[in-house]
Amino acid sequence: MIKQITSTQNSYIKELVLLKEKSRARKKSGLFLIEGAREIGLALKGGYHLDTILFYPELFSETDLDQLVKDSVNRIEVSKDVYQKLAHRDTTEGVLAVTKTKEHVLESITLKTENPLILVAEAPEKPGNIGALLRTADAANVDLVIIANPKTDLYNPNIIRSSVGCVFTNQIAMGSTSEIIAFLKEKQIPIYCAALQASVDYHTLDYTKSTALIVGTEATGLSQEWRDAATQNIIIPMQGEIDSMNVSVAAGILIFEAKRQRNFK
Amino acid sequence: MIKQITSTQNSYIKELVLLKEKSRARKKSGLFLIEGAREIGLALKGGYHLDTILFYPELFSETDLDQLVKDSVNRIEVSKDVYQKLAHRDTTEGVLAVTKTKEHVLESITLKTENPLILVAEAPEKPGNIGALLRTADAANVDLVIIANPKTDLYNPNIIRSSVGCVFTNQIAMGSTSEIIAFLKEKQIPIYCAALQASVDYHTLDYTKSTALIVGTEATGLSQEWRDAATQNIIIPMQGEIDSMNVSVAAGILIFEAKRQRNFK
Repeated sequence: MIKQITSTQNSYIKELVLLKEKSRARKKSGLFLIEGAREIGLALKGGYHLDTILFYPELFSETDLDQLVKDSVNRIEVSKDVYQKLAHRDTTEGVLAVTKTKEHVLESITLKTENPLILVAEAPEKPGNIGALLRTADAANVDLVIIANPKTDLYNPNIIRSSVGCVFTNQIAMGSTSEIIAFLKEKQIPIYCAALQASVDYHTLDYTKSTALIVGTEATGLSQEWRDAATQNIIIPMQGEIDSMNVSVAAGILIFEAKRQRNFK
Repeated sequence: MIKQITSTQNSYIKELVLLKEKSRARKKSGLFLIEGAREIGLALKGGYHLDTILFYPELFSETDLDQLVKDSVNRIEVSKDVYQKLAHRDTTEGVLAVTKTKEHVLESITLKTENPLILVAEAPEKPGNIGALLRTADAANVDLVIIANPKTDLYNPNIIRSSVGCVFTNQIAMGSTSEIIAFLKEKQIPIYCAALQASVDYHTLDYTKSTALIVGTEATGLSQEWRDAATQNIIIPMQGEIDSMNVSVAAGILIFEAKRQRNFK
């Protein structure tokens, strides 16, 4: 017999609303919400552990559920009201997973390739920018994405949504700028910082060996700490009227230049 | 003596609200609103003609105004209420320009370089995507941006804002897909369509001669009409779990590969 919840006042549902809305609640409980079958599928593929599945049977049937989760994950049938209270999107898919967060510490990172390609983003402000960076990193199959001095946790619903689930497909670490610089130096990975003040054009360097590409925010660019630590500061030549570029576009240009030089291998 | 308007019920102010909100009102009057000194400056540089300047003196003084507009543009001082009713952004700058729209027809386009680099975007849905494309096009100083089958007019406040004024710095044309294909073929400009179905990797082609790069929407990609008209369909190799890329990131990768091949000249 599957458990049913029909009241939005149910105490468990209230806890889940907090998981949706509050970074603090996610950190405290070690749980977060994933919405949508595709995203849940990507999380499973990425090794995430589902705690509970909630479904609204008129949109997502038990048969759909059997196809999505093979394991014996705890299932709860919810009413339309309860589903809408928990769902983040306009287009409702009818399925949500309460999922265990992962730790994203540098110490547990293993780099599986000889010449890894790493993207570092310093303090990206907008969830949408982080999502776009993660999509690009997924497309290029980079070895590791590192968020320096993060301003939000990774499991913000807007990051999950704007990454179209790529928050689950990338290997991701977080840390302070100092920690990350120490990590890269210890592993002898050259640091290439995208900086408007730089004089070396990005496309003149060799990225076929180990490479860490570092991008900052649109508003303030990279911190002095990063620019001082750089093996080389690099610039994307800007030939228009405007002196800034969308951070995910800039990262895409740099990452795919590295991929091109590596012949997409 | 400068004219003053303090009532949000003033009939001219009501007309301006319509210019902000309704594409139809912009088309009918041939006028639109620009907010912010930087954007107004870029519009002037781009040859736009200002009809009237509205300013809220506590945020933007007459001295500021003298620096911004050298011409004898009609000036109106407005109250805080009126300014807030017309302003689109949270961070208010205190200055707005009622500006004459330009026609963006293919017939009046002149290509000033021998081997032009052209970006075509088919039916981009979101103003934010159009803005990001225009920023990238500005940075690369492409010769022409063409919007095929546009879903909105260019002077939507969200486009102006997300382009950070690059809607004024680019040469932009609009037209139907058929018109644009005819235009490119008549000028003998090769058409390279970014398509997930393509088998030729983007970086294997030569973009040093005349080049039109065509991108579609994330949801549906490019139409069959474009793919049939292509000199070559091209693909950005996707090596992750996800099969789509943000359209402005994809455009950035293609444009800057062309720029790299051209040595940023």
